[in-house]
Amino acid sequence: MTQQGLTARELRAWRVSFEMLELLRTRIEQQLQAVSGLSNADYTVLAVLSEAPDGRLRLFELCRIAGWEKSRLNHQLTRMSSRGLVLRERCGSRGIHAVITEKGLAALEEAVPGHTREVRRLFVDRLTPDELDRFADTAATILDGLRADQASA
Amino acid sequence: MTQQGLTARELRAWRVSFEMLELLRTRIEQQLQAVSGLSNADYTVLAVLSEAPDGRLRLFELCRIAGWEKSRLNHQLTRMSSRGLVLRERCGSRGIHAVITEKGLAALEEAVPGHTREVRRLFVDRLTPDELDRFADTAATILDGLRADQASA
Repeated sequence: MTQQGLTARELRAWRVSFEMLELLRTRIEQQLQAVSGLSNADYTVLAVLSEAPDGRLRLFELCRIAGWEKSRLNHQLTRMSSRGLVLRERCGSRGIHAVITEKGLAALEEAVPGHTREVRRLFVDRLTPDELDRFADTAATILDGLRADQASA
Repeated sequence: MTQQGLTARELRAWRVSFEMLELLRTRIEQQLQAVSGLSNADYTVLAVLSEAPDGRLRLFELCRIAGWEKSRLNHQLTRMSSRGLVLRERCGSRGIHAVITEKGLAALEEAVPGHTREVRRLFVDRLTPDELDRFADTAATILDGLRADQASA
């Protein structure tokens, strides 16, 4: 069946991009799970918190950075809390913080070398430096649009 | 924490690409789910089968096209069978076919226009034709590597 509204060229561009992104995230997660038991979402939360001052961020900031809705972040943090990787802490009247724990930091530090090797092997080293930069610039353009669209929804 | 083994430029390229792909697939699936109750994986299976001769493909072919492992495809087909969207049919000694049903085809046809509009809005129309072509070419390079790696695993 044809996809109304997209030219053959646009449809080809979409399909190869979508197949690539689905397979890439699957393979990256397989390596993470096998070695450290972390999902892509776990890794994102731990990496973002580990780089925040005092390892903590307000939930709305974490939602914004990860691009998740509040309910998805809350489910994610509940699962991670039960494994001792993060805590939620109320901060006065200013909302709730997510905080990385010692155990979360240790899990991240253990996962980083293998994850980084896999990112290099499956993504970075496939491309020339110019291709990598151009791809990232285009990804940033798409991401900006997605965020603007989400903010206005 | 720094990611050993990636330069700042490579890490920036990876992060923006990964954030983009996570947010894009989430948003695309939200639209599909809201309008037709299909996941990205459901849509992929239905679209691939609808374009195959007689709406049927051997499971290993479907695995190869979707980039999934056999166990993942089997779980996916079980869920879709229970909703009447696909059938599994044994074909002599030559393995098993996945077959799209009338109901599956109707669900796909209902989903296509809204899905296509969302793909255009969030992806195709954000880029110039040149950017789109270059992005797809780079995605194809990464995808080829992922498939070769998977085949050799």
